[in-house]
Amino acid sequence: MPGLAAVPAFIGAVDGTCSFEELPPDGLLADVEFYAPLYMGPPESLRIMSRMPRLRVCQLLTAGYEHALEHVPAGVALCNAAGVHDTSTAELAVGLAIARLRGIDDFARAMPSGAWLHGSRDALADRTVVIVGAGNVGEAIRRRLEPFEVDLHVVGRTARPGVHGAEDLRVLVRRAGVVILAVPLTDQTRYLVDDEFLALLPDGALVVNVARGPVVDTHAVLRHAGRLRFALDVTDPEPLPADHPLWQEPRVLISPHVGGNTSAFRPRIHALVSAQVQAWRAGEPLRNVVASV
Amino acid sequence: MPGLAAVPAFIGAVDGTCSFEELPPDGLLADVEFYAPLYMGPPESLRIMSRMPRLRVCQLLTAGYEHALEHVPAGVALCNAAGVHDTSTAELAVGLAIARLRGIDDFARAMPSGAWLHGSRDALADRTVVIVGAGNVGEAIRRRLEPFEVDLHVVGRTARPGVHGAEDLRVLVRRAGVVILAVPLTDQTRYLVDDEFLALLPDGALVVNVARGPVVDTHAVLRHAGRLRFALDVTDPEPLPADHPLWQEPRVLISPHVGGNTSAFRPRIHALVSAQVQAWRAGEPLRNVVASV
Repeated sequence: MPGLAAVPAFIGAVDGTCSFEELPPDGLLADVEFYAPLYMGPPESLRIMSRMPRLRVCQLLTAGYEHALEHVPAGVALCNAAGVHDTSTAELAVGLAIARLRGIDDFARAMPSGAWLHGSRDALADRTVVIVGAGNVGEAIRRRLEPFEVDLHVVGRTARPGVHGAEDLRVLVRRAGVVILAVPLTDQTRYLVDDEFLALLPDGALVVNVARGPVVDTHAVLRHAGRLRFALDVTDPEPLPADHPLWQEPRVLISPHVGGNTSAFRPRIHALVSAQVQAWRAGEPLRNVVASV
Repeated sequence: MPGLAAVPAFIGAVDGTCSFEELPPDGLLADVEFYAPLYMGPPESLRIMSRMPRLRVCQLLTAGYEHALEHVPAGVALCNAAGVHDTSTAELAVGLAIARLRGIDDFARAMPSGAWLHGSRDALADRTVVIVGAGNVGEAIRRRLEPFEVDLHVVGRTARPGVHGAEDLRVLVRRAGVVILAVPLTDQTRYLVDDEFLALLPDGALVVNVARGPVVDTHAVLRHAGRLRFALDVTDPEPLPADHPLWQEPRVLISPHVGGNTSAFRPRIHALVSAQVQAWRAGEPLRNVVASV
């Protein structure tokens, strides 16, 4: 990436090879002023900030930042990558919804045996779709679903034009054909989708989770998997152990937390980090500052 | 369906139960004036028109009509169901494209063994997408893909604003990440996608076929399946025999011709046939007349 090499900073995950696999070498730690920890890296990639006395900016490559707070030294601005993963995550949410409703997962599993499973399937069209989360990802999902002939509702924390308040959620999901979860994990959203929530959904409704695993109670999913459908890019626990019963549920589709990890990530994270490094060198305000410790 | 029962016609596939499974009983044949043959029914459902002396309208439930031409008696208007399957087929085209690029089919096949296949995958975003076919289905796919941050091109027979002419196709596909086939099967489109066509595509490009099986040369697919990717809702032969080698190609996703056969079909075909029966009773012009034999 042109220009970055001259910066007295270790831009970890956005070096020229974008390997996302290396920690800064010990010899550099004393000089690092701008640090971008590895994408989905080990805890050490955050703890290492305690050995960077000149650090001024920690630029995360994820939208979530709660996990980093305790590791950010005093005087350092913590920035997240809100916006960078929207494209990729929203696209997956749409793909998972269509795949599960139309049975693409069933067809894929039947391929090795050569089974031609023709029959009528549910379409996404004509369904009430409730997107839970009115942030960047929720809005990116909304934009993509608008041409799909669905009855589309977005639920946020507080009502505003085009967005339902949280108080409408339990009414809306009673007639939902598809519920798509795109909320951050907070005390309010942890186990938001539990037994009581799932019991509100009509038979055959589909729950898509592209948020975080613990937004959904896995035990409740297992209890409702005969009546409802699920497409989960995130799970609790995660990774899901090989012997977990969720893998064997025919109405559950699981993708291994790949919402953000795609070819769309690299150009967008490079654009963000380049802009941030430039702003920081020029003394201009940084974007996406989520905490200034 | 209210109103239809009073019509002196056998509306086969759109009777009250919409079973799509019954032929008109012998005792009714002499009275049938408006006939809607079974959806994807047996040849007998078309041949039986020779025993309907009062027949005036044959309303197909498919967009394709070539198969019916030889069975339509003199003096009968043949109408197709163009428009009815667009929603469902376009939605599947988007779902298949995302599923194959993001590896949803791989994840589904890995589920029984509990394998968490995390890794970076290709996104649909940022790719050049070429939709081959500028009819109802092609335009429905275009509308759905517009918010997906892709470089979108539609190719029709002749150039017009927003549509490339057929002469641009071979230039466009050289830089295509995704090619979506949405053409009718004609002498011009049969084996359009052959060895020579596939050789033009860049490595890793995805071909989605929601048109008809013989638009693609299956032998050519097998030869290019190591370098390219495919998502095929239609195949040649069809149904694909259980022992066909295409089933075993890891970069090929096959769905069993389910583009139109969904919950979106029933309300749309009812709306079309109701409108056609009403127009016919009122002596008004019919829609979708594709041949007046």
